[in-house]
Amino acid sequence: MIRVLLVQDTYLLRAALAAFLGREPDLEVLSASWEHAAATSWARWPDVCVVDMDSPDAAGPRGLRELSARCCAGDGTSVLLALATAERPGPLRRAYEEGALGYLSKNASPDQLVEGIRRVAKGERYIDESLGYGFLEAAEIPLTRRELSVLSLAAEGSSIGEIARSLHLSNGTVRNYLASITRKTGARNRVDAIRISRGAGWV
Amino acid sequence: MIRVLLVQDTYLLRAALAAFLGREPDLEVLSASWEHAAATSWARWPDVCVVDMDSPDAAGPRGLRELSARCCAGDGTSVLLALATAERPGPLRRAYEEGALGYLSKNASPDQLVEGIRRVAKGERYIDESLGYGFLEAAEIPLTRRELSVLSLAAEGSSIGEIARSLHLSNGTVRNYLASITRKTGARNRVDAIRISRGAGWV
Repeated sequence: MIRVLLVQDTYLLRAALAAFLGREPDLEVLSASWEHAAATSWARWPDVCVVDMDSPDAAGPRGLRELSARCCAGDGTSVLLALATAERPGPLRRAYEEGALGYLSKNASPDQLVEGIRRVAKGERYIDESLGYGFLEAAEIPLTRRELSVLSLAAEGSSIGEIARSLHLSNGTVRNYLASITRKTGARNRVDAIRISRGAGWV
Repeated sequence: MIRVLLVQDTYLLRAALAAFLGREPDLEVLSASWEHAAATSWARWPDVCVVDMDSPDAAGPRGLRELSARCCAGDGTSVLLALATAERPGPLRRAYEEGALGYLSKNASPDQLVEGIRRVAKGERYIDESLGYGFLEAAEIPLTRRELSVLSLAAEGSSIGEIARSLHLSNGTVRNYLASITRKTGARNRVDAIRISRGAGWV
Protein backbone atom coordinates (compact mmCIF):
# COMPACT_ATOMS: atom_id res chain seq x y z
CA MET A 1 0.00 0.00 0.00
CA ILE A 2 1.36 3.43 -0.98
CA ARG A 3 0.35 6.30 1.31
CA VAL A 4 -0.03 9.51 -0.68
CA LEU A 5 -0.34 13.10 0.54
CA LEU A 6 -1.80 15.39 -2.10
CA VAL A 7 -0.98 19.06 -1.52
CA GLN A 8 -3.12 21.50 -3.49
CA ASP A 9 -4.88 24.66 -2.33
CA THR A 10 -8.29 24.34 -3.98
CA TYR A 11 -10.46 21.94 -2.03
CA LEU A 12 -12.84 21.17 -4.90
CA LEU A 13 -10.00 20.12 -7.18
CA ARG A 14 -7.87 18.25 -4.67
CA ALA A 15 -10.90 16.35 -3.34
CA ALA A 16 -11.79 15.22 -6.87
CA LEU A 17 -8.19 14.24 -7.61
CA ALA A 18 -7.90 12.42 -4.28
CA ALA A 19 -11.12 10.52 -5.05
CA PHE A 20 -9.70 9.55 -8.43
CA LEU A 21 -6.42 8.31 -6.94
CA GLY A 22 -8.26 6.57 -4.09
CA ARG A 23 -9.95 4.23 -6.56
CA GLU A 24 -6.60 2.50 -7.13
CA PRO A 25 -6.35 -0.51 -4.82
CA ASP A 26 -2.70 0.18 -3.90
CA LEU A 27 -3.09 3.89 -3.05
CA GLU A 28 -4.27 5.42 0.22
CA VAL A 29 -4.75 9.15 -0.20
CA LEU A 30 -4.78 12.10 2.19
CA SER A 31 -5.07 15.66 0.92
CA ALA A 32 -4.37 19.10 2.35
CA SER A 33 -3.73 22.72 1.46
CA TRP A 34 -0.11 23.93 1.52
CA GLU A 35 -0.65 25.70 4.81
CA HIS A 36 -2.02 22.61 6.54
CA ALA A 37 0.31 20.12 4.91
CA ALA A 38 3.39 21.77 6.32
CA ALA A 39 1.86 22.61 9.71
CA THR A 40 0.15 19.31 10.54
CA SER A 41 1.75 16.74 12.83
CA TRP A 42 1.08 13.73 10.66
CA ALA A 43 0.86 10.54 12.72
CA ARG A 44 2.96 8.91 10.03
CA TRP A 45 4.32 10.69 6.99
CA PRO A 46 3.01 9.42 3.69
CA ASP A 47 5.32 7.57 1.32
CA VAL A 48 4.81 10.06 -1.50
CA CYS A 49 3.95 13.77 -1.33
CA VAL A 50 2.32 14.98 -4.54
CA VAL A 51 2.70 18.76 -4.54
CA ASP A 52 1.06 21.31 -6.83
CA MET A 53 3.90 23.81 -7.31
CA ASP A 54 1.75 26.56 -8.84
CA SER A 55 0.22 27.76 -5.59
CA PRO A 56 1.72 31.04 -4.34
CA ASP A 57 2.05 29.29 -0.96
CA ALA A 58 4.39 26.67 -2.45
CA ALA A 59 7.14 29.30 -2.51
CA GLY A 60 6.21 30.81 0.87
CA PRO A 61 7.28 30.10 4.46
CA ARG A 62 4.84 27.19 4.78
CA GLY A 63 5.75 25.98 1.34
CA LEU A 64 7.91 23.32 -0.23
CA ARG A 65 11.03 24.10 1.78
CA GLU A 66 9.31 23.44 5.11
CA LEU A 67 7.32 20.48 3.81
CA SER A 68 10.44 18.97 2.32
CA ALA A 69 12.48 19.56 5.49
CA ARG A 70 9.85 17.76 7.53
CA CYS A 71 8.76 14.94 5.26
CA CYS A 72 11.89 14.00 3.37
CA ALA A 73 14.68 14.22 5.89
CA GLY A 74 13.07 15.13 9.20
CA ASP A 75 9.86 13.63 10.58
CA GLY A 76 9.35 11.22 7.72
CA THR A 77 10.93 9.69 4.68
CA SER A 78 8.54 10.69 1.93
CA VAL A 79 9.55 11.35 -1.63
CA LEU A 80 8.26 14.36 -3.54
CA LEU A 81 6.37 14.27 -6.82
CA ALA A 82 5.98 17.79 -8.22
CA LEU A 83 3.06 18.88 -10.41
CA ALA A 84 4.20 21.76 -12.61
CA THR A 85 3.76 23.34 -16.02
CA ALA A 86 6.42 23.63 -18.72
CA GLU A 87 5.54 27.31 -19.23
CA ARG A 88 6.48 28.24 -15.65
CA PRO A 89 10.08 27.18 -15.03
CA GLY A 90 10.29 28.89 -11.58
CA PRO A 91 8.17 26.33 -9.68
CA LEU A 92 9.93 23.50 -11.54
CA ARG A 93 13.28 24.79 -10.37
CA ARG A 94 12.11 25.15 -6.76
CA ALA A 95 10.97 21.51 -6.82
CA TYR A 96 14.34 20.47 -8.26
CA GLU A 97 16.21 22.41 -5.58
CA GLU A 98 14.26 20.57 -2.89
CA GLY A 99 15.20 17.24 -4.42
CA ALA A 100 11.87 16.14 -5.86
CA LEU A 101 12.13 12.65 -7.37
CA GLY A 102 9.15 12.94 -9.71
CA TYR A 103 7.93 15.69 -12.06
CA LEU A 104 4.59 15.59 -13.83
CA SER A 105 2.99 18.15 -16.09
CA LYS A 106 -0.38 19.43 -14.93
CA ASN A 107 -1.54 18.72 -18.46
CA ALA A 108 -0.87 15.02 -17.98
CA SER A 109 -3.73 12.60 -17.36
CA PRO A 110 -4.74 11.35 -13.90
CA ASP A 111 -3.60 7.88 -15.04
CA GLN A 112 -0.09 9.23 -15.63
CA LEU A 113 -0.15 10.61 -12.11
CA VAL A 114 -0.97 7.13 -10.79
CA GLU A 115 1.95 5.74 -12.79
CA GLY A 116 4.27 8.49 -11.52
CA ILE A 117 3.29 7.84 -7.90
CA ARG A 118 4.05 4.13 -8.23
CA ARG A 119 7.41 4.85 -9.81
CA VAL A 120 8.65 7.35 -7.23
CA ALA A 121 7.31 5.16 -4.41
CA LYS A 122 9.80 2.55 -5.65
CA GLY A 123 12.55 5.15 -5.45
CA GLU A 124 12.73 5.68 -9.21
CA ARG A 125 13.04 9.09 -10.82
CA TYR A 126 9.97 9.99 -12.92
CA ILE A 127 10.01 12.89 -15.37
CA ASP A 128 7.11 13.55 -17.68
CA GLU A 129 8.78 14.23 -21.02
CA SER A 130 6.48 17.13 -21.84
CA LEU A 131 8.28 19.07 -19.08
CA GLY A 132 11.61 18.80 -20.91
CA TYR A 133 11.61 22.31 -22.35
CA GLY A 134 10.61 23.74 -19.00
CA PHE A 135 13.65 22.07 -17.45
CA LEU A 136 15.93 23.69 -19.98
CA GLU A 137 14.48 27.07 -19.10
CA ALA A 138 14.60 26.35 -15.38
CA ALA A 139 18.33 25.70 -15.66
CA GLU A 140 18.79 29.09 -17.26
CA ILE A 141 17.21 31.50 -14.83
CA PRO A 142 18.85 34.75 -15.85
CA LEU A 143 18.62 36.51 -12.48
CA THR A 144 20.96 36.29 -9.52
CA ARG A 145 19.70 35.52 -6.03
CA ARG A 146 20.12 39.18 -5.03
CA GLU A 147 18.25 40.37 -8.12
CA LEU A 148 15.42 37.97 -7.25
CA SER A 149 15.23 39.45 -3.73
CA VAL A 150 14.99 42.96 -5.14
CA LEU A 151 12.41 41.86 -7.71
CA SER A 152 10.26 40.06 -5.11
CA LEU A 153 10.04 43.18 -2.99
CA ALA A 154 9.31 45.34 -6.04
CA ALA A 155 6.56 42.92 -7.06
CA GLU A 156 4.97 43.32 -3.61
CA GLY A 157 4.74 47.04 -4.26
CA SER A 158 7.75 48.23 -2.24
CA SER A 159 9.29 51.51 -3.38
CA ILE A 160 12.99 51.84 -4.18
CA GLY A 161 13.60 53.40 -0.76
CA GLU A 162 11.75 50.59 0.99
CA ILE A 163 13.67 47.91 -0.92
CA ALA A 164 16.94 49.66 -0.11
CA ARG A 165 16.16 49.80 3.63
CA SER A 166 14.91 46.24 3.70
CA LEU A 167 18.01 44.80 2.01
CA HIS A 168 20.50 47.29 3.51
CA LEU A 169 21.44 48.70 0.14
CA SER A 170 21.67 52.26 -1.20
CA ASN A 171 18.87 53.61 -3.41
CA GLY A 172 21.33 53.80 -6.31
CA THR A 173 22.25 50.13 -5.96
CA VAL A 174 18.57 49.13 -5.97
CA ARG A 175 18.07 51.23 -9.11
CA ASN A 176 21.02 49.45 -10.73
CA TYR A 177 19.58 46.04 -9.82
CA LEU A 178 16.20 47.01 -11.25
CA ALA A 179 17.82 48.24 -14.47
CA SER A 180 19.77 45.02 -14.77
CA ILE A 181 16.61 42.93 -14.10
CA THR A 182 14.71 44.87 -16.75
CA ARG A 183 17.51 44.33 -19.27
CA LYS A 184 17.97 40.62 -18.51
CA THR A 185 14.26 39.81 -18.73
CA GLY A 186 13.93 41.72 -21.99
CA ALA A 187 11.26 43.89 -20.36
CA ARG A 188 10.19 47.37 -21.39
CA ASN A 189 10.25 48.69 -17.84
CA ARG A 190 10.04 47.68 -14.20
CA VAL A 191 6.34 46.78 -14.23
CA ASP A 192 6.90 44.70 -17.35
CA ALA A 193 9.85 42.92 -15.70
CA ILE A 194 7.60 42.00 -12.76
CA ARG A 195 4.92 40.75 -15.15
CA ILE A 196 7.39 38.60 -17.12
CA SER A 197 8.98 37.17 -13.98
CA ARG A 198 5.61 36.38 -12.44
CA GLY A 199 4.54 34.64 -15.63
CA ALA A 200 7.62 32.44 -15.47
CA GLY A 201 7.02 31.83 -11.77
CA TRP A 202 10.38 33.33 -10.69
CA VAL A 203 8.77 35.51 -8.05
CA MET B 1 -29.77 12.96 -18.07
CA ILE B 2 -27.93 16.26 -17.52
CA ARG B 3 -25.18 17.04 -20.04
CA VAL B 4 -22.38 18.98 -18.37
CA LEU B 5 -19.47 20.85 -19.95
CA LEU B 6 -16.64 21.46 -17.48
CA VAL B 7 -14.36 24.33 -18.49
CA GLN B 8 -11.03 24.41 -16.68
CA ASP B 9 -7.53 24.90 -18.07
CA THR B 10 -5.53 22.24 -16.23
CA TYR B 11 -6.10 18.86 -17.83
CA LEU B 12 -5.04 16.84 -14.78
CA LEU B 13 -7.55 18.61 -12.53
CA ARG B 14 -10.48 18.83 -14.93
CA ALA B 15 -10.09 15.16 -15.91
CA ALA B 16 -10.22 14.12 -12.25
CA LEU B 17 -13.21 16.37 -11.58
CA ALA B 18 -14.97 15.11 -14.73
CA ALA B 19 -14.35 11.52 -13.60
CA PHE B 20 -15.83 12.35 -10.21
CA LEU B 21 -18.95 13.94 -11.72
CA GLY B 22 -19.26 11.14 -14.28
CA ARG B 23 -19.89 8.62 -11.51
CA GLU B 24 -23.31 10.19 -10.93
CA PRO B 25 -25.92 8.26 -12.91
CA ASP B 26 -27.73 11.41 -14.08
CA LEU B 27 -24.66 13.34 -15.29
CA GLU B 28 -22.89 13.04 -18.63
CA VAL B 29 -19.67 15.05 -18.58
CA LEU B 30 -17.49 16.63 -21.26
CA SER B 31 -14.52 18.78 -20.35
CA ALA B 32 -12.37 21.33 -22.16
CA SER B 33 -9.94 24.19 -21.70
CA TRP B 34 -11.30 27.73 -22.05
CA GLU B 35 -9.76 28.08 -25.49
CA HIS B 36 -11.36 24.90 -26.80
CA ALA B 37 -14.69 25.31 -25.04
CA ALA B 38 -15.42 28.60 -26.78
CA ALA B 39 -13.98 27.56 -30.16
CA THR B 40 -15.50 24.10 -30.55
CA SER B 41 -18.60 23.49 -32.63
CA TRP B 42 -20.41 21.30 -30.13
CA ALA B 43 -22.83 18.93 -31.84
CA ARG B 44 -25.29 19.81 -29.09
CA TRP B 45 -24.62 22.31 -26.33
CA PRO B 46 -24.59 20.83 -22.85
CA ASP B 47 -27.37 21.69 -20.41
CA VAL B 48 -24.98 23.14 -17.85
CA CYS B 49 -21.58 24.80 -18.38
CA VAL B 50 -19.44 24.63 -15.22
CA VAL B 51 -16.76 27.29 -15.64
CA ASP B 52 -13.65 27.87 -13.55
CA MET B 53 -13.49 31.66 -13.45
CA ASP B 54 -9.91 31.89 -12.11
CA SER B 55 -8.19 31.12 -15.39
CA PRO B 56 -6.66 34.21 -17.04
CA ASP B 57 -8.38 33.02 -20.23
CA ALA B 58 -11.83 33.33 -18.61
CA ALA B 59 -11.53 37.12 -18.97
CA GLY B 60 -9.94 36.99 -22.43
CA PRO B 61 -11.35 37.00 -25.99
CA ARG B 62 -12.06 33.25 -25.89
CA GLY B 63 -13.41 33.58 -22.37
CA LEU B 64 -16.75 33.75 -20.64
CA ARG B 65 -18.23 36.44 -22.87
CA GLU B 66 -17.82 34.34 -26.02
CA LEU B 67 -18.79 31.09 -24.33
CA SER B 68 -21.86 32.72 -22.85
CA ALA B 69 -22.85 34.33 -26.17
CA ARG B 70 -22.68 30.95 -27.88
CA CYS B 71 -24.07 28.58 -25.28
CA CYS B 72 -26.69 30.60 -23.47
CA ALA B 73 -28.44 32.62 -26.10
CA GLY B 74 -26.87 31.63 -29.42
CA ASP B 75 -26.08 28.07 -30.49
CA GLY B 76 -27.46 26.44 -27.37
CA THR B 77 -29.48 27.01 -24.27
CA SER B 78 -27.04 26.08 -21.52
CA VAL B 79 -26.99 27.63 -18.09
CA LEU B 80 -23.74 28.73 -16.45
CA LEU B 81 -22.46 27.56 -13.08
CA ALA B 82 -19.41 29.60 -12.04
CA LEU B 83 -16.61 28.26 -9.84
CA ALA B 84 -14.99 31.17 -7.99
CA THR B 85 -13.34 32.18 -4.75
CA ALA B 86 -14.67 34.67 -2.24
CA GLU B 87 -11.25 36.37 -2.05
CA ARG B 88 -11.30 37.32 -5.74
CA PRO B 89 -14.43 39.38 -6.44
CA GLY B 90 -13.40 40.24 -10.03
CA PRO B 91 -14.14 36.83 -11.58
CA LEU B 92 -17.34 36.60 -9.52
CA ARG B 93 -18.52 39.87 -10.98
CA ARG B 94 -17.68 38.81 -14.53
CA ALA B 95 -19.76 35.66 -14.05
CA TYR B 96 -22.64 37.75 -12.69
CA GLU B 97 -22.46 40.15 -15.63
CA GLU B 98 -22.78 37.20 -18.03
CA GLY B 99 -25.86 36.00 -16.22
CA ALA B 100 -24.53 32.87 -14.49
CA LEU B 101 -27.31 31.05 -12.66
CA GLY B 102 -25.08 29.17 -10.21
CA TYR B 103 -22.08 30.21 -8.09
CA LEU B 104 -19.95 27.73 -6.17
CA SER B 105 -16.84 28.33 -4.11
CA LYS B 106 -13.78 26.41 -5.23
CA ASN B 107 -13.42 25.44 -1.60
CA ALA B 108 -16.73 23.58 -1.72
CA SER B 109 -16.81 19.79 -1.95
CA PRO B 110 -17.31 17.88 -5.20
CA ASP B 111 -20.66 16.70 -3.77
CA GLN B 112 -21.80 20.31 -3.49
CA LEU B 113 -20.89 20.76 -7.13
CA VAL B 114 -23.13 17.82 -8.04
CA GLU B 115 -25.95 19.41 -6.06
CA GLY B 116 -25.35 22.79 -7.73
CA ILE B 117 -25.40 21.25 -11.20
CA ARG B 118 -28.73 19.55 -10.52
CA ARG B 119 -30.23 22.76 -9.19
CA VAL B 120 -29.22 25.02 -12.07
CA ALA B 121 -30.20 22.31 -14.59
CA LYS B 122 -33.74 22.73 -13.21
CA GLY B 123 -33.46 26.47 -13.80
CA GLU B 124 -33.00 27.33 -10.13
CA ARG B 125 -30.48 29.87 -8.89
CA TYR B 126 -27.74 28.30 -6.76
CA ILE B 127 -25.40 30.40 -4.64
CA ASP B 128 -22.94 28.80 -2.26
CA GLU B 129 -23.30 30.84 0.92
CA SER B 130 -19.55 30.98 1.53
CA LEU B 131 -19.33 33.30 -1.48
CA GLY B 132 -21.55 35.88 0.19
CA TYR B 133 -18.79 38.23 1.25
CA GLY B 134 -17.22 38.01 -2.18
CA PHE B 135 -20.52 39.15 -3.69
CA LEU B 136 -20.58 42.19 -1.43
CA GLU B 137 -17.11 43.10 -2.58
CA ALA B 138 -17.93 42.37 -6.21
CA ALA B 139 -20.78 44.85 -6.04
CA GLU B 140 -18.39 47.50 -4.80
CA ILE B 141 -15.62 47.57 -7.34
CA PRO B 142 -14.06 50.97 -6.68
CA LEU B 143 -12.68 51.58 -10.17
CA THR B 144 -14.44 53.00 -13.19
CA ARG B 145 -14.38 51.23 -16.54
CA ARG B 146 -11.85 53.74 -17.87
CA GLU B 147 -9.62 53.32 -14.83
CA LEU B 148 -9.74 49.55 -15.37
CA SER B 149 -8.63 50.01 -18.99
CA VAL B 150 -5.68 52.14 -17.86
CA LEU B 151 -4.80 49.67 -15.13
CA SER B 152 -4.97 46.65 -17.45
CA LEU B 153 -2.49 48.25 -19.84
CA ALA B 154 -0.23 49.30 -16.96
CA ALA B 155 -0.34 45.72 -15.60
CA GLU B 156 0.83 44.44 -18.99
CA GLY B 157 3.89 46.65 -18.68
CA SER B 158 2.84 49.55 -20.91
CA SER B 159 4.47 52.90 -20.12
CA ILE B 160 2.43 56.05 -19.52
CA GLY B 161 3.14 57.20 -23.09
CA GLU B 162 2.04 53.85 -24.51
CA ILE B 163 -1.17 53.84 -22.44
CA ALA B 164 -1.90 57.41 -23.54
CA ARG B 165 -1.46 56.57 -27.24
CA SER B 166 -3.43 53.36 -26.95
CA LEU B 167 -6.44 55.03 -25.27
CA HIS B 168 -6.14 58.38 -27.10
CA LEU B 169 -5.50 60.30 -23.88
CA SER B 170 -2.82 62.79 -22.87
CA ASN B 171 0.08 61.64 -20.68
CA GLY B 172 -1.19 63.93 -17.90
CA THR B 173 -4.64 62.32 -17.98
CA VAL B 174 -3.10 58.85 -17.74
CA ARG B 175 -1.03 60.04 -14.76
CA ASN B 176 -4.19 61.36 -13.13
CA TYR B 177 -5.98 58.04 -13.67
CA LEU B 178 -3.04 56.13 -12.19
CA ALA B 179 -2.97 58.46 -9.17
CA SER B 180 -6.70 57.97 -8.66
CA ILE B 181 -6.37 54.18 -9.02
CA THR B 182 -3.55 54.13 -6.47
CA ARG B 183 -5.62 56.18 -4.02
CA LYS B 184 -8.82 54.17 -4.49
CA THR B 185 -7.12 50.81 -4.04
CA GLY B 186 -5.29 52.02 -0.94
CA ALA B 187 -1.99 51.18 -2.64
CA ARG B 188 1.43 52.61 -1.88
CA ASN B 189 2.28 53.16 -5.54
CA ARG B 190 1.47 52.05 -9.05
CA VAL B 191 3.12 48.64 -8.78
CA ASP B 192 1.27 48.04 -5.52
CA ALA B 193 -2.04 49.07 -7.15
CA ILE B 194 -1.45 46.49 -9.89
CA ARG B 195 -0.63 43.84 -7.29
CA ILE B 196 -3.79 44.59 -5.25
CA SER B 197 -6.03 44.66 -8.33
CA ARG B 198 -4.58 41.42 -9.66
CA GLY B 199 -5.12 39.77 -6.27
CA ALA B 200 -8.78 40.78 -6.37
CA GLY B 201 -9.03 39.61 -9.99
CA TRP B 202 -10.07 43.04 -11.29
CA VAL B 203 -7.47 42.93 -14.07
